[in-house]
Amino acid sequence: MELDAVSIEQRDSADPLAHLQQLFSIPDGVIYLDGNSLGALPKNVSSVLTNAVEEQWGKSLIKGWNCHNWIDLPSRVGNRIAKLVGAEEGTLICADSTSLNVFKVLATAMKLRPGRKVILSDTGNFPTDLYMAQGLKELTGGDIELRLVAPEEVETALDETVAVMMLTEVDYRTGRKHDMKVLTEKAHSVGALAMWDLCHSAGAFPVHLKDANVDFAVGCSYKYLNGGPGAPAFVYVAPKHQATSGNPLTGWMGHDAPFAFDLGYTPSAKTDQMRVGTPQVLAMTALNASLDVFDHTNLEALQAKSIELSELFISEVKRRCPNLELASPTDPMKRGSQVSFRHEQGYAVMQALIDRGVIGDFRAPNIIRFGFAPLYLSFADVFKAAEILEEIIAGDLWDKPEYHQKSKVT
Amino acid sequence: MELDAVSIEQRDSADPLAHLQQLFSIPDGVIYLDGNSLGALPKNVSSVLTNAVEEQWGKSLIKGWNCHNWIDLPSRVGNRIAKLVGAEEGTLICADSTSLNVFKVLATAMKLRPGRKVILSDTGNFPTDLYMAQGLKELTGGDIELRLVAPEEVETALDETVAVMMLTEVDYRTGRKHDMKVLTEKAHSVGALAMWDLCHSAGAFPVHLKDANVDFAVGCSYKYLNGGPGAPAFVYVAPKHQATSGNPLTGWMGHDAPFAFDLGYTPSAKTDQMRVGTPQVLAMTALNASLDVFDHTNLEALQAKSIELSELFISEVKRRCPNLELASPTDPMKRGSQVSFRHEQGYAVMQALIDRGVIGDFRAPNIIRFGFAPLYLSFADVFKAAEILEEIIAGDLWDKPEYHQKSKVT
Repeated sequence: MELDAVSIEQRDSADPLAHLQQLFSIPDGVIYLDGNSLGALPKNVSSVLTNAVEEQWGKSLIKGWNCHNWIDLPSRVGNRIAKLVGAEEGTLICADSTSLNVFKVLATAMKLRPGRKVILSDTGNFPTDLYMAQGLKELTGGDIELRLVAPEEVETALDETVAVMMLTEVDYRTGRKHDMKVLTEKAHSVGALAMWDLCHSAGAFPVHLKDANVDFAVGCSYKYLNGGPGAPAFVYVAPKHQATSGNPLTGWMGHDAPFAFDLGYTPSAKTDQMRVGTPQVLAMTALNASLDVFDHTNLEALQAKSIELSELFISEVKRRCPNLELASPTDPMKRGSQVSFRHEQGYAVMQALIDRGVIGDFRAPNIIRFGFAPLYLSFADVFKAAEILEEIIAGDLWDKPEYHQKSKVT
Repeated sequence: MELDAVSIEQRDSADPLAHLQQLFSIPDGVIYLDGNSLGALPKNVSSVLTNAVEEQWGKSLIKGWNCHNWIDLPSRVGNRIAKLVGAEEGTLICADSTSLNVFKVLATAMKLRPGRKVILSDTGNFPTDLYMAQGLKELTGGDIELRLVAPEEVETALDETVAVMMLTEVDYRTGRKHDMKVLTEKAHSVGALAMWDLCHSAGAFPVHLKDANVDFAVGCSYKYLNGGPGAPAFVYVAPKHQATSGNPLTGWMGHDAPFAFDLGYTPSAKTDQMRVGTPQVLAMTALNASLDVFDHTNLEALQAKSIELSELFISEVKRRCPNLELASPTDPMKRGSQVSFRHEQGYAVMQALIDRGVIGDFRAPNIIRFGFAPLYLSFADVFKAAEILEEIIAGDLWDKPEYHQKSKVT
């Protein structure tokens, strides 16, 4: 079916989520297909943050810890994220970075499975998760084995040597999505624990941590949750593991009574044991504000729109750039909210796109990656992006020296 | 010598740092003696942060990592802090929390001293530092001993079993200050490494990490550096240890080439190896702005004023409240920028003070604590605070039920 601008306009008119776009600040002339890397700015964040700085910090000073309840931001923000990933109240806190939360969870998991030494992961996992496992192994004297298999081999690689299966639900390059429920069940059937990294899941589509019986989860808040660059991450601990004191990063905020200033550490019996240092008040306040947009919709509706947007993009790109190889699964239920293609000169192609206002990103060696954040993208955006991609590919417009100069962050 | 309001006014008129107060936003009617817990708001922070949100994040989106150089914020901000603590360019980065940085440093130090198992610290250290050592010990299977001695016994407790001496320069309760140079030298003389926590030092008085030949240092930025509630911390690695890959929190930002997305971890050969996850862009931008006030003065001048303020406070309190016991050293060179007194009902006394606009804080069991941030305090503030303290003590004004109700954060 060939589409034209009119029929696309009709789809936007009929889109029940179209009104959400006005909650975001998107620069003119930009089609932003990189919300899977850094979410766009929700318009309410700036004034909330200004208030936190000028009124809360500026006027309440130290009293802010009590009168603005800064001290509970990790659980207050955590509980809002919990609702978006199908987690129970009180099981998820906002803290530190995803990498640090991976470390806390892996150490806890290894402690819960003392006879086992394997951390099972896949080669599609985001590298920092693997690095944290390597660091833990190195520190603990090598009594850990990080076993890496191809993503499609995880299920068969699960055996009774595995202490914890550590997977990122959505592959950051291809968008390939694991079946969380099936793999968690399989992990449990061999006595392993399941830890999921939701960096590319949270805020993009429904996640059901409780229903899938997941043991631990981590994730960042600066992608589909739009928390801002470097926004604090989150960590989930299933109720059955709440009383486990496995987090080796035993900072005062994870203490059962931080303000008793005891010389010895006694872990909190709640998810708070995953806290370490003083909470990042300003950053968490920004994130808290950014979560407001989710009060206006639900993740089923967002996923439905995401699938429509990505299917439209794939069909348009297929038609317009038949030589571009799709790197993502064709079945939308097996993808996250992103679509990737392969092009030998992917870096330069992406620079040419960015130059024309279509912002996606590149992942080595040859992946051009497009994220579909249904909160603020229209069908017209996606249609236009495919048109511009066609111009660049058909006209070899990427073949300019300036598009080949790598920047610091690629 | 008895002082009166006129002579106090003369001291303020003659104060070469008096003009700095106007760089801060201090609420009317407040005498803020808690800058040692949470620094006051520098007036420039709010607009800088608004710009980072609206212009940088909002308009540059993902491109901000390159075009606003977000990726280098840890070292850019770190280099500014380095100047304030006598550290060499490139040796200090801004990252994570103090607690997490303690963990990184302790693990690195233990690796550098493989035959030794003692972490020597004192009972005056801030608990979270001790907790992190306990967590590291627990995780690594117990081959670490955390040896705690009284602060005055550290020097004699240093022996050839000690891998690393971990001290906080200024005691958070009493303000007692260790001699960094002497103790570091003594640590080195027995082959131990020296790690200093500068939470109550950085921004308050001169610190000379390089001159004192310190191996590692950590500290927070929300006290005398005025970075805001929960602002990111810092970590210093002496040049001779730069190439050591001892940080077990091996996140992608500490990798030698984070954007190569290798499956295996290769540590950066620079201080960057102490980085873990994605930098906290908004919080670091706020901190970066808050550091501007230090461009207008120097730490020698700040220390001189801090001593004058604290000596004035001590003499006034001694005169007005002769029964209050000074908990801080009488020699100002042996104190940080705070003064503490003991009172059996310290908590209630502090609540009564806060109720009258004099904000200090309380530390169990009986310490009332007053911080002197010379950037924004006047002699009149300090004189007035002593007057109000006298009213409360002389009139038993603290003896009301509402002053005995403990709040969540005390």
